[in-house]
Amino acid sequence: MSIAETGEFGLIARIVARLGTGAETLLGPGDDAAVVAAPDRRVVASTDVLVEGRHFRRDWSSPADVGHRAAAANLADIAAMGAQPTALLVALCVPTDLEVEWAEELAGGLSAEAGLVGASVVGGDMSASPTLTIAVTALGDLQGREPVVRSGAQPGDVVALAGRTGYAAAGFTILSRGFRTPKVLVEAHRRPEVPYAAGTAAALAGATAMIDVSDGLLQDLGHIATASVVGIDINRDAFEIPDQMRDAASALGVDPYGWLLAGGDDHALAATFPPGAELPPGWRVVGGVHEGTGVTVDRRQWQGGKGWDHFR
Amino acid sequence: MSIAETGEFGLIARIVARLGTGAETLLGPGDDAAVVAAPDRRVVASTDVLVEGRHFRRDWSSPADVGHRAAAANLADIAAMGAQPTALLVALCVPTDLEVEWAEELAGGLSAEAGLVGASVVGGDMSASPTLTIAVTALGDLQGREPVVRSGAQPGDVVALAGRTGYAAAGFTILSRGFRTPKVLVEAHRRPEVPYAAGTAAALAGATAMIDVSDGLLQDLGHIATASVVGIDINRDAFEIPDQMRDAASALGVDPYGWLLAGGDDHALAATFPPGAELPPGWRVVGGVHEGTGVTVDRRQWQGGKGWDHFR
Repeated sequence: MSIAETGEFGLIARIVARLGTGAETLLGPGDDAAVVAAPDRRVVASTDVLVEGRHFRRDWSSPADVGHRAAAANLADIAAMGAQPTALLVALCVPTDLEVEWAEELAGGLSAEAGLVGASVVGGDMSASPTLTIAVTALGDLQGREPVVRSGAQPGDVVALAGRTGYAAAGFTILSRGFRTPKVLVEAHRRPEVPYAAGTAAALAGATAMIDVSDGLLQDLGHIATASVVGIDINRDAFEIPDQMRDAASALGVDPYGWLLAGGDDHALAATFPPGAELPPGWRVVGGVHEGTGVTVDRRQWQGGKGWDHFR
Repeated sequence: MSIAETGEFGLIARIVARLGTGAETLLGPGDDAAVVAAPDRRVVASTDVLVEGRHFRRDWSSPADVGHRAAAANLADIAAMGAQPTALLVALCVPTDLEVEWAEELAGGLSAEAGLVGASVVGGDMSASPTLTIAVTALGDLQGREPVVRSGAQPGDVVALAGRTGYAAAGFTILSRGFRTPKVLVEAHRRPEVPYAAGTAAALAGATAMIDVSDGLLQDLGHIATASVVGIDINRDAFEIPDQMRDAASALGVDPYGWLLAGGDDHALAATFPPGAELPPGWRVVGGVHEGTGVTVDRRQWQGGKGWDHFR
């Protein structure tokens, strides 16, 4: 059945039926607005949008995959502030000939990913559009902590990473070349595995700056370097190339460090910690902060791709 | 200059330069997420999306108009809960050949409308897309009050309205037929005049249910009737037809009550109040609540259009 047949309100009812209710949801979908608990008296909020053809393809990803990914991209931004995600709102623009089941399964994916951190989809809006577009807003609670911003890195800090880099970019390259394996890489493009708990753990451990790695590690660390007015150097040897990534890179004739250092969309978390800080589980040192500007690899300019700029 | 020339980060910098900072903004644009004050320990949140060709046309509305309208549609949802808007987040999808000035002026409109209620744009995301799309999320604070939901109307309550209805729908019809006047109606389509203060005033005066009239008065009152399990009757004589609307309706051969009772997008607020409640300034009685179901006009089924369903 197409969305033109169910109509807006029919589709919304079907989607709402797929959504769970998180502990922080005081008033869920169905009114003019939702009401979400904000026990900290501050709310953390971030918006990310996925556009078909730019961020996903329906022939590469299932609707549940797209839902997981849209939620993950937003929840990772909340985690990167050291906050606990509480809720998602979703603006969904769909072609009128879209199958209703596609939208329902998308909602299922959004809801399931939010459920990984105890959050839920509390509201949204829907419109017909020639371009399938999913804009998600995530809310979060700081639990009494200060937000971990990009501007706090100090010379002498260590640079640490939680989660994977390069997997989603490798998966994207593989799919672009018409292949479907290795599965671990292709799946990473479809559904990132975000180290959510590492965000609050880093905040508790005294992280001085933190960022969600969505555009590529070097580019995103560049945002910390710029905001903190410091230089950052990465040790290439801190990155082991997983066997399947090495094999895929070799078969496709690309440099796997391009994926690891400049590939986006895994939503790893990168942070800086004071020298001597004990890193929480899941974090590993990959470099250091020094006086200066910019981001280097083994003290040299990285010559590979720099990451994504969505308009070029 | 087109957006393809400035790139994503260049455009974001230009847009951020257009935004003000509201009193509730603790951390504005530029980090992974924004931080907004939520003094009430609850946050009200709503998302609305505008799609070019469905909700606006670039040849009918200026970019600032579109910004005002996108912000107003969301801020009205917060007001309809009896809450005070605090912040907006904006996901903007734009064709790469869009002029940068268009996006800048859109941001100016969003920011100016938010400024009317002391709120500001605190964050967002941007992507290229073939379809110009603006998804806005508004946040608000309940200031210690309970949210005014749709389900609280009781038989015996009066139905009251704050703000205009029919103006935006009349403006849309006029523009659709190729005309550009009367200006008051056309401008109402471009920039709704939302009675924001009436929302919190209604909550303080004991409103039992409230809704933002975005899809047409009868349809939106229908949501209150359904959620509250009551019937609602509207007095047609409570609606005076403004002279310019009467003249336009006559010239175009349409029933002006269709605009007044079923036209959307003015973002009036409709609410129910207990019998004998003193209505706050700006509110006027237009009907009553009774035991039963559905919405009638002068106790009869309304035969005109029912409002918008965006997929049919």
